[in-house]
Parts: sequence; C-alpha cells; structure tokens
Amino acid sequence: MIACERSAFYLLLLLTLGQAPLSVTAGKILIWPGEFSHWLNMKVIIDKLIARGHNVTTVTHSATPSVRTTPSPGYNVDIIQVPHTKQDFVESLEKFMNYWTYEMANDSIIQVSLKMKEIFDLIAEQNYIFCQNLFARDDLLEKWHKEGFEVLLIDPMTTCGDLLAQKLNLPFIISLRFSFGNVIERLCGQLPAPPSYVPGVTICHTDQMNFPQRLKNVLFNLYQDLMFSVVVSAKWDSLYAEFLGKPTTLCDTMGKADIWLIRTYWDFEYPRPFLPNFKFVGGLHCKPAKPLPKEMEEFVQSSGDDGIVVFSLGSMVKNLTKERANTIAAALGQIPQKVLWRYTGEKPDTLAPNTRLYDWIPQNDLLGHPKTKAFITHGGTNGLYEAIYHGVPMVGIPLFADQPDNLLHMKTKGAAVMLEYNKMQTKDLKDALTEVINNPSYKESMMRLSRIHHDQPMKPLDQAVFWIEFVMRNKGAKHLRVAAHDLTWYQYYCLDVAAFLLSIVALVTFIFVKSCAWLFRKCCRRTSAKSKKE
Amino acid sequence: MIACERSAFYLLLLLTLGQAPLSVTAGKILIWPGEFSHWLNMKVIIDKLIARGHNVTTVTHSATPSVRTTPSPGYNVDIIQVPHTKQDFVESLEKFMNYWTYEMANDSIIQVSLKMKEIFDLIAEQNYIFCQNLFARDDLLEKWHKEGFEVLLIDPMTTCGDLLAQKLNLPFIISLRFSFGNVIERLCGQLPAPPSYVPGVTICHTDQMNFPQRLKNVLFNLYQDLMFSVVVSAKWDSLYAEFLGKPTTLCDTMGKADIWLIRTYWDFEYPRPFLPNFKFVGGLHCKPAKPLPKEMEEFVQSSGDDGIVVFSLGSMVKNLTKERANTIAAALGQIPQKVLWRYTGEKPDTLAPNTRLYDWIPQNDLLGHPKTKAFITHGGTNGLYEAIYHGVPMVGIPLFADQPDNLLHMKTKGAAVMLEYNKMQTKDLKDALTEVINNPSYKESMMRLSRIHHDQPMKPLDQAVFWIEFVMRNKGAKHLRVAAHDLTWYQYYCLDVAAFLLSIVALVTFIFVKSCAWLFRKCCRRTSAKSKKE
Repeated sequence: MIACERSAFYLLLLLTLGQAPLSVTAGKILIWPGEFSHWLNMKVIIDKLIARGHNVTTVTHSATPSVRTTPSPGYNVDIIQVPHTKQDFVESLEKFMNYWTYEMANDSIIQVSLKMKEIFDLIAEQNYIFCQNLFARDDLLEKWHKEGFEVLLIDPMTTCGDLLAQKLNLPFIISLRFSFGNVIERLCGQLPAPPSYVPGVTICHTDQMNFPQRLKNVLFNLYQDLMFSVVVSAKWDSLYAEFLGKPTTLCDTMGKADIWLIRTYWDFEYPRPFLPNFKFVGGLHCKPAKPLPKEMEEFVQSSGDDGIVVFSLGSMVKNLTKERANTIAAALGQIPQKVLWRYTGEKPDTLAPNTRLYDWIPQNDLLGHPKTKAFITHGGTNGLYEAIYHGVPMVGIPLFADQPDNLLHMKTKGAAVMLEYNKMQTKDLKDALTEVINNPSYKESMMRLSRIHHDQPMKPLDQAVFWIEFVMRNKGAKHLRVAAHDLTWYQYYCLDVAAFLLSIVALVTFIFVKSCAWLFRKCCRRTSAKSKKE
Repeated sequence: MIACERSAFYLLLLLTLGQAPLSVTAGKILIWPGEFSHWLNMKVIIDKLIARGHNVTTVTHSATPSVRTTPSPGYNVDIIQVPHTKQDFVESLEKFMNYWTYEMANDSIIQVSLKMKEIFDLIAEQNYIFCQNLFARDDLLEKWHKEGFEVLLIDPMTTCGDLLAQKLNLPFIISLRFSFGNVIERLCGQLPAPPSYVPGVTICHTDQMNFPQRLKNVLFNLYQDLMFSVVVSAKWDSLYAEFLGKPTTLCDTMGKADIWLIRTYWDFEYPRPFLPNFKFVGGLHCKPAKPLPKEMEEFVQSSGDDGIVVFSLGSMVKNLTKERANTIAAALGQIPQKVLWRYTGEKPDTLAPNTRLYDWIPQNDLLGHPKTKAFITHGGTNGLYEAIYHGVPMVGIPLFADQPDNLLHMKTKGAAVMLEYNKMQTKDLKDALTEVINNPSYKESMMRLSRIHHDQPMKPLDQAVFWIEFVMRNKGAKHLRVAAHDLTWYQYYCLDVAAFLLSIVALVTFIFVKSCAWLFRKCCRRTSAKSKKE
C-alpha cells in the first residue's frame, strides 16, 4: 500500500514538474543580465533554473539599478566596480526615454540621428567602462574559467556578454526582444527579413505594406544598418578585437550564439521567416493569477458587475506632468469601473473616488482576476504578454522604443485601442475605455490571441529551459547554425553569381550584335558593289 | 488500495500515452495519401490519430498499389474507380525509377528534360484521370461535405488533395519530404531558400558551396522553376480553375495549406531558414525495436561478436541484374559479419553462407538490435531515419530521386560511406563495409545524430499529431501563414522599390551632370568671349 502510494506520488510529481524533461545532471550557468523589465524577464528563467537544481552565477556592476545582488541558495553574484553611480546609470536611460517620448516627434531625421548618437554614446560609455573593468579582473576571469560553467545566458541590452563567452570559451545563448531595426538579428544572427513583408521593429507598419510603406521599410533597414555601423561597430569592434586578441567584430562574436531566445511568439508577431536556432518564448514569465492582498481584493469586489480597469505605464515611468496626470485622472473618473493605477507621482487634482493609486501593483494577479475588464498600458512586452495570457483587452498609451509598435500589433489584431500620450484628451481616454470594455469584439480578439498563446506544444518557459539545458547537455547547438555566417554579403545575395551570369549574357549579346553588324555590312557591300557594277 | 492502484494506473496511462496533449474531443479527419514509402509514413500518423479516438477516412483510387483499402474500427476508405490497373500504375513509376537509376547519367540535360517530361506526363495523366473521376462523384463530395470533417491531411505525391480541401472548404495540412528543387515549398509555400547556402534537393551539394557550386545551384533553381511551369502548372492550372469555378492555380491552392509537416529534422538537414507553419517531423515513424522472429534471432545471435549487417534497397526494388547481384553477394561473403538481405530476385550464384535472403525484413527491429553493426541502404528517408534513430552507420548505394542527396548528407556528417550502384565492384563494397564497421568515427558520428534526433522538445510523431489537432481545434492556423502569399514576385523581392530608388538616383545624377555641363559651357563661353575681346 505504501509502495503504491509512493509510486503514485512520484508519478504525480513527474506530471506537475511541467513539460520540460528533467536534465540528467544539474550544472553551472553564468548569467549576463539586462536591466529593468529585461531583468524581470531573465529572473523568471533564473528562478526556474535554480528550481531545477542548477547553480547560477550572475555578473553585474556596482551601479545596477535592478539586478539582484544578494546571493541565495543556488544564486551567486559577481559584482564589477564601476566609477559611475546607480543615479548616473538611471539618468542616462531616462534621458533616452524622455527624448523619445516628448521631443523626438518634433525633430528632423538629422536631428534625431545626432541626438540618438549622443544619448547612445553616453549609455555605451558606461557599458564600455563596465566591460573594460571586467576584463581587467584577471582573478575573476580565472575563477570563472575554473568554475566549470556549461553555458552563458546573455541579454545584449548590456554589451559584452558574448565577448565574455568567447573569452571563457563557453557556448552562449542570447535572450532578446528586438534590436533597433532588427540589425543584430539580421546582420549578426543571419535572420532573413524580406523588407517586403517583415516590417522593422519601431517602424509601425504591419506585414501588409503598400508601395510607400515598403519603400520606407527598405530605407529604414538601410538607415539602421548605417546607424549600427556608425554608433555600435565604431565603438566596440576594436575593443572586441583587443580583448580576444584576434581580428573580430561585435557582430561576428554575437553571431556565434548557439541559441537565440526571442521574447515573442506568433500570438503577437506577424509570421516571418526564421532560423532553426531562433526559439520564440514570448510570455515565458506569465503564470496563473495568485490571490490579491485583502484590501485590494475588497476594492476589486466593490466594483460589482462593472468590474475593474488595471492601469500601469511600467516601472520606468515615475512621474507625469500635472496636466497629463489630471487629464488621465478625469477620464478614469467618468467610467463606471473601479480603477487600480500604479502611479508614484503627485496625486492628481481630478482623481475620482473610483480610482486608487498604488506604488506597486501585483499586475499579473490583477490581469488574471475575473473582474478585470481592461488594461491601460504603455505597451511594454512583459505587460502585453500578461494581458494576452489572461485575455484582457487593452487601451495602449505608448511612450517610447518598441511600445508604439507593440501596441500597433495588438490594434491590428483587434485587441486594443491606441492613444497618443502627448495629444490625448480626457474624452479620448474615456471613449477608448468605453469602446474596449463595451464592444465585445476586443475581448473576443484578445481571447483568440490567448488561445494561440496557450495552445503550444510546450510552455514558453519550459522551452527556454529546454534549449538552455540542450546546450549544456550537448556543449552547444552548432547543428542549428546556418552556413550563411561563413559568407560575405555579396556571396550571401549571390551577387557574384549574378554578375557572372550578366557578363555572360552581355558577352553573348555583344558577339551576336557584332556578328550581325558584320554580316549586314558584308551583305550591303556586296549588294552595293553589285549595283555599282550593274 | 484498489482506488490507489487505479489512480496510479491512470497516471501511468497518461504518461505512456506520449507527450502530445489529449485533444478535447475526437474528430473526423480526411486523408489524401501518397504511395509506397509515402503511404508507410502516413499510415503511422493515421494509426496514432485512430488510437487517439479520431475517425479517419482515406480517399484513394482503384489502382492503388499500397494504400490500405479494407476498413477497420476508426478507419474508413472511399475508393474512386479509375480505368488503369495497379500494374499500369506501378509500371509508370518503375519507368521513372529505372530511367533515373540506369540511364539518366548518360543523357544530356535536353534529353533528360524531354524524357522526364514524358515520364511525368505519363504519371500525371493517371493522376489527372483520378482527379477528374473524383470531381465527377457529386455523391461523394456531398457525403464528405455533410460528414463534418475538420481537416484534410494530404501527401502531394498525388496531386489534387489541396483542390479537394478547397472544394470542401476544409483547412488542410501537407505532409512532404521534398519537391524537386523545392519548387512547391519555395514558390507555393513561400519558404525562403537563399541559393547561396541552401542547396536544392537532388543537386548533391552541401550548405558550404564554392562559386561554381553556387552558380550551379542558382541555375538549378531556375531550371526547376521552368520545368515546374512547363510540366506541372501547364497540366493542372486549368483543371484547378475549372473545378473551383474561379481563376486560380495549383500553386495558389497549395499555398493555402495551414501547416507543412516536413519529413526531416536538423539531425539530417543542413540548417536553413523556414516559416512558422513549417514543422519538421522527420523520423516520426521510428520506434524502439521489438523482438525478432525466433529463426531470425537465432541467425543474428550466431554472428557472435562480429555482429550483423542489415541490407535493403527499399520496397520498390524487386530485382537486380544478375551481374550486380553477384558483385554484391561476393562482397558480402568476404566480411565476418552475418548479413540479412531483403531481396526478392533470383538467388545470386556468389551468395555465401553468412548471407541470408528474405522477402521481407522487420527493418526497424533489426536496426535496433544490439548486434547490428551497419546498414546497407539505398538512402530512402524512412530507412535513413530508422538508422539515425538507432544510431547505425551506413553504406549507401543510392538509386534515384533524393537518395544520392540523402546519403551525401550522411556522408558529410561522417556517418556513411557512399558507393555508385552502377560502377561499384566487389572490393568497393567490401572495403566500404570494413571501413564503416571498423573505423569508430562512423558509429560516433551516427550516435551524435541520434542524440540530436532524440533530444527534441517533443517527439516527431507527437508534434505532427499536435499540429493536426491544433488545426482541428482552431479551424486552421492562419496566424502562422506569411503575408508573402499576397505579394507578386517583384513586390516580394522589392524590385519595384529598387527600380524607384534607382530612377531617383539616375534622375539626380542626370540633373547634376546636365547642370555641371551647363555651368561649364557658360563659364567657357564667358572665358572665350573675354579672350576674344582681349
């Protein structure tokens, strides 16, 4: 009886452990994380890896605003000292965010390029110092070398992780939402992206483009390639070559990644070509909702049949202008729903009794609450995937980076209404909320996306873990890496073949025309000689 | 105690049912199969679908040489009468096979093209009549329409399945190893195949091509596209348009497939770009070995430490010439292993006591036997995958179609030695066998491929069933279908955009040159006027 119970228990355990097969032996994993929402996403993978018995070591710097720096069982951290402070770090990122949100729309492309280069240079400089200080730490490099790590998981939001992997001779995996214009995926990862139906991220086109849009998309790709070469390659290539002690580039090094974990899926993405080592794991952080704190649950229940609206502009937005905050609060006061607003700024004057402000909200638990009718969001990928997971339609107020593009995806799929942060009035927000809540098509579209999200052969987090452990088990995944990496750009596009074929055609045409001309002259001469004779 | 045992039993049952989640409700599936090895592969999927509670109806014709025509629980068949016999059908396929195996190498490309067109026309004519007779059966079309099928699974080896799907307004799934030059995948499925590193199937190049090989690959693709248009489109397009009652083509109709189940995987394929609705399920028919029949097991055990060699040239090869059979049998007699040879032809004079002939062999069970040292094969995909599954190195004697190409894959991956059927001598075969059996690198390479094959997030058969049931659950998988289907070829390649940009460049250059010339003339005139004056 006891034996029987035990076997049933083990079987149950096996079933509840999820779909990813158990790795044979626990291993050691090095982590190179990003910051803010990137870190939150990576943390979910780290926690899962630790739960599966692996030992994780995170590499970060002394100015990190988000990465967990306190060790815990299975979790170790190595911190590189940098001269700048956490405040400096956050400020440079805020500069980037504020320019994009409030000023960029009024500037010309030249002004935008110059300003962006200036901001990127500022951010890259801090990153550059981190990288230099890291490679000056021979003791740490030596320690990591001896440690017996099996894989390095990197977020390229912070540059240098791939360089570290090469230096330590480790296989590595990239976790990525997107790079501007998909330059890194396209140029370094060899991901094909036909500009005729694959719109660049941040360009705000769908996969159905007319002629002017396709033209813009082609030019956008060319512009991003140029910016990459001027801003990124110029900054990093020499450092990469120096630290690896051989001629190389950032792009070459990134291209050596064994697996690319892309943080989207076909519920969100327009279908597009991809490669065997690109795995789409969007929404890996999503999970069923947990019960809310008591006070919050009471507020939510007090909404009755009208339900609630969840509102957050993400962890990076601390404050809004008084005017914008009042415009928003006034709109929220005009809907019958109760509103939970994550906002750390000054309390708006127009705040109505149906709206409560919170410094922090359990966003996933709220979105998974049966009373939730809509989600007002800036359109960051993490929040957007939580909404897809729980099937909550959205009102999008995008601020910067991929957010307008993300929300356009949701809008074209019929699951969101979009507003412009700088221009929207109280009535616009009120109307948008009323539309999304009362027109059932938004809920239906979102439920369709939610079904696609849940109906996959393997859960996204299990898939991410599977491929990390695959690389550990097999010491890489080179059998998934295309031979395009070994070609020059003109070989890749077969331009040498085209030139050869065109030369042959030109030669044949030339010989043909010349022969005809010669024959014609010969004939004419004979005829004219004959006529003269006559 | 009984309750406990029962729950343990259900849990065990759940585990043994495999990884694919149970579909919520059993459904009705229409099947459009291919013949010979194609049917064997499809049959595995059918059996699994029936085991999962689905009801399957296969559509075939009265001359089918392989499709199972007797109904059984869960399995129904509808047979269309055709005027030709099974013998006619097999003969036309043998004509194709024999020309490719014995004659093609000596012919010029013009002769090959003409002969191939003649043979394809012969095969297509029988297929055409089948299709016409099918669409004349209004009673069957009406019956199928009413039956409530949820999906049609087609093997395009027999044309018309996609047309039937469109006629019945059903989502459909294509099961495919390859089409010549990947024309159907490329042109109809919009699968990107950069000719710089994706070699056409049957061209016998790897993904590492030098300039002449890339040139040949480009020309091969162009040639296959032309042949497709002359041989296939010319034959079928009008019939498709007629039966659907609207302007359409075979390629357009094939392109409407919801999912493409490709019968290979990255253990075998060179990595290449693909699309979200292309799922690689190579080796879905493979399974652990079952015990051998008693007499066979005794013969295998009598081999001692030397072990055995399994030899089959596939189900389509019934006979060899006396000379070839003797050459082969003599070589087999010179190795210390025991040989099990699937051969229905006349017993060769040189047959040695270590070799036994069989009309049929349990190939998968033999390849999975611990005594098996090598596999002599023609290189059909089914057998090749059984060898990968069980990790058995190969001696390849390819005959026709994709077989030389398949074996080249295995050779370049270090898992096979290749011989030419028409030219090989006794010593060649004996040496090849000795090499493959005694040089451990072949076994190691094959074990590496075997590890890749087994180390997938989901078993191939479970994945195939998952996507069939996905289409049933969601009434299609249109969210995985790229927008490239809506573009013309010049839009796809952005040739209109390129032409526009080049025109702009040309116009700007023209205006610049003309302005310069005008200014130059103006200057010169003034100078010459001045000098004249002086």
